[in-house]
Amino acid sequence: MENALNLDTVLLAENKKDLIILDQTLLPNECKYLTMNRAEDIWEAIYSLRVRGAPAIGVAGGYGYYVLADQVETEDMDTFVAECTKIMEYLNSSRPTAVNLSWALNRMHGVLLAEKDGKTVAEMKVRLMQEADAIREEDIQISRNIGAYGFELLEKLGKGVGVMTHCNAGTLATAKYGTALAPIYIALENGWDGKQDLHVYCDETRPLLQGARLSAYEMQAAGVDTYVQCDNMASYTMKSGKIGIIFVGCDRVAANGDFANKIGTSGVAIIAKHYGIPFYVCAPSSTIDMTMESGDEIRIEQRKPEEVTEMWYAQRMAPEGVGVVNPAFDVTDHSLVTGIITEKGIATAPFKESFERMGIKPVEKFVDKK
Amino acid sequence: MENALNLDTVLLAENKKDLIILDQTLLPNECKYLTMNRAEDIWEAIYSLRVRGAPAIGVAGGYGYYVLADQVETEDMDTFVAECTKIMEYLNSSRPTAVNLSWALNRMHGVLLAEKDGKTVAEMKVRLMQEADAIREEDIQISRNIGAYGFELLEKLGKGVGVMTHCNAGTLATAKYGTALAPIYIALENGWDGKQDLHVYCDETRPLLQGARLSAYEMQAAGVDTYVQCDNMASYTMKSGKIGIIFVGCDRVAANGDFANKIGTSGVAIIAKHYGIPFYVCAPSSTIDMTMESGDEIRIEQRKPEEVTEMWYAQRMAPEGVGVVNPAFDVTDHSLVTGIITEKGIATAPFKESFERMGIKPVEKFVDKK
Repeated sequence: MENALNLDTVLLAENKKDLIILDQTLLPNECKYLTMNRAEDIWEAIYSLRVRGAPAIGVAGGYGYYVLADQVETEDMDTFVAECTKIMEYLNSSRPTAVNLSWALNRMHGVLLAEKDGKTVAEMKVRLMQEADAIREEDIQISRNIGAYGFELLEKLGKGVGVMTHCNAGTLATAKYGTALAPIYIALENGWDGKQDLHVYCDETRPLLQGARLSAYEMQAAGVDTYVQCDNMASYTMKSGKIGIIFVGCDRVAANGDFANKIGTSGVAIIAKHYGIPFYVCAPSSTIDMTMESGDEIRIEQRKPEEVTEMWYAQRMAPEGVGVVNPAFDVTDHSLVTGIITEKGIATAPFKESFERMGIKPVEKFVDKK
Repeated sequence: MENALNLDTVLLAENKKDLIILDQTLLPNECKYLTMNRAEDIWEAIYSLRVRGAPAIGVAGGYGYYVLADQVETEDMDTFVAECTKIMEYLNSSRPTAVNLSWALNRMHGVLLAEKDGKTVAEMKVRLMQEADAIREEDIQISRNIGAYGFELLEKLGKGVGVMTHCNAGTLATAKYGTALAPIYIALENGWDGKQDLHVYCDETRPLLQGARLSAYEMQAAGVDTYVQCDNMASYTMKSGKIGIIFVGCDRVAANGDFANKIGTSGVAIIAKHYGIPFYVCAPSSTIDMTMESGDEIRIEQRKPEEVTEMWYAQRMAPEGVGVVNPAFDVTDHSLVTGIITEKGIATAPFKESFERMGIKPVEKFVDKK
């Protein structure tokens, strides 16, 4: 098992020629790093979601641009710029709707256009490597900072705290640390014991199971006491008293604090409020859109039905040895019930009196309940 | 496609010799009825959950007892009683924890012991058939009554109402009509148009998918406009304004109205309360346990981890042609958020002011968002 503090998602090889990507399509059953330097391979890795998570895709775009630019054999800057333009357009076509990809490619290309005058192609290649490194380093620093703020909250709750999360906003979605899971990694760096001091509950996150496959994987890999639960078990677990805080990631935050995140997040928030559990969103400031007054303006993508009606994932969906929450039932408090419809009428609160008026009495059961 | 008003779950064949069971393990991909009269086949059908749902198992137990008793070739009542005792014990061993099974078998056997004196074996066999029929008829009548009360609520909400349900408490769990889905069937019997007047949203109900496989199947078979959604999509659908009422079944109700039902029900109830949607429990009065003060006394069964970590269901999990809800994201209202952790600090309500204090401003994005 990898040590998660070394579980890099995207990085430049030591030879400075190859891009290394953790193939997330094989998780949680296999942890395999792909080393690549061909344009088609980099394109395919992004297209096929071998690298996923908006920040991680951005980092892959930056390094992808550099690795391919570095292979351009010319000393003529105009030729170099023309080739780099092709590289940018080609890589961007792998996931045209991924904002972070086009953002990172534009940033790389912007540096080239702004700084090419007076530099040789060789000098420019070094500069592009520095810029790709900077994209990665900045991403790591943002995650570290988010993690540090989150860790302060964990410290107030004390060692032994239970943390719940939804989907995957961890190391695997960024260059390192993640957002929602960053506080956990920072706690580990501060000497917290993953098995004793932290208990992480991951919603499996249907339909695509990012929680079961990815969050549970990286938390377990980090040596944290980790549990997977079906999404509908969140209420049961919160009611059990085991959860001290909830961290989720986000895709976009409106100016009023409404935010969009993986389907199911709003339900977790409503249930958390019911049980009085603090619910925190971990958001790089780049995701906060001050031009958007409220979440009503956020358009929600509808995806294809087969994701729900067919289980595309034929393998085991959570890492071996992970903890699992699997209660068959839960108990719903009567305060949440409008009425109980029996064959004798509809009971309403207070229910006991209502049942008695219907003639329902405690009966001696004659049946042998083996 | 079957007409659901004729979608019997368990019944006695017209020859009065065979038990007919709808094999629910093949749903939603195949609708196959099994005709059986051998003890081993009846035992296996109950053991392998080909018939499921507490009331339906009780009906199967009653008819199973009769069908096998009818085959006992003797005119000596003591011999007949001895053979029936073996039948009772054998069938009860198929699912010893199923209370309705032992209840029905005890009821059949109790009739035999109480009424055997003065009757021939042939007369007693007829009497046992009547008792098994009575178990089925009583179950249907209870469901019809629950459905009628629920239909009154639907009438108040008016045609076109959206109904949400969790797990399967329909025809497939009883002899007919079900509990949570009974109001829908009664609405259809009262001339409501399944495609125009009713819209039913079924939580898929992880881990065992009874909602996707069974509720969606029987609602679609009944000609109702039916949608499947992952459990974590319930909040999204409720927020959309499409849901007028929620009906769920229950396994046990405490005197104060707390109730146990399939895992995930309490979360649905909490979310429904948040959105102000009426939430009704459909409960045969036999499930109301007045000896239990509150739900705190209800013990929750923990099931095996593999149900969560491995997808046991290799086939399509919902009927062909069913509607599907599959939004990629949902929007969480800021009132539910304790704080938003950014790399610049933790924002709290009112968030806009908090963001502004952090120096987050509306920025012109230079990135081409293709």
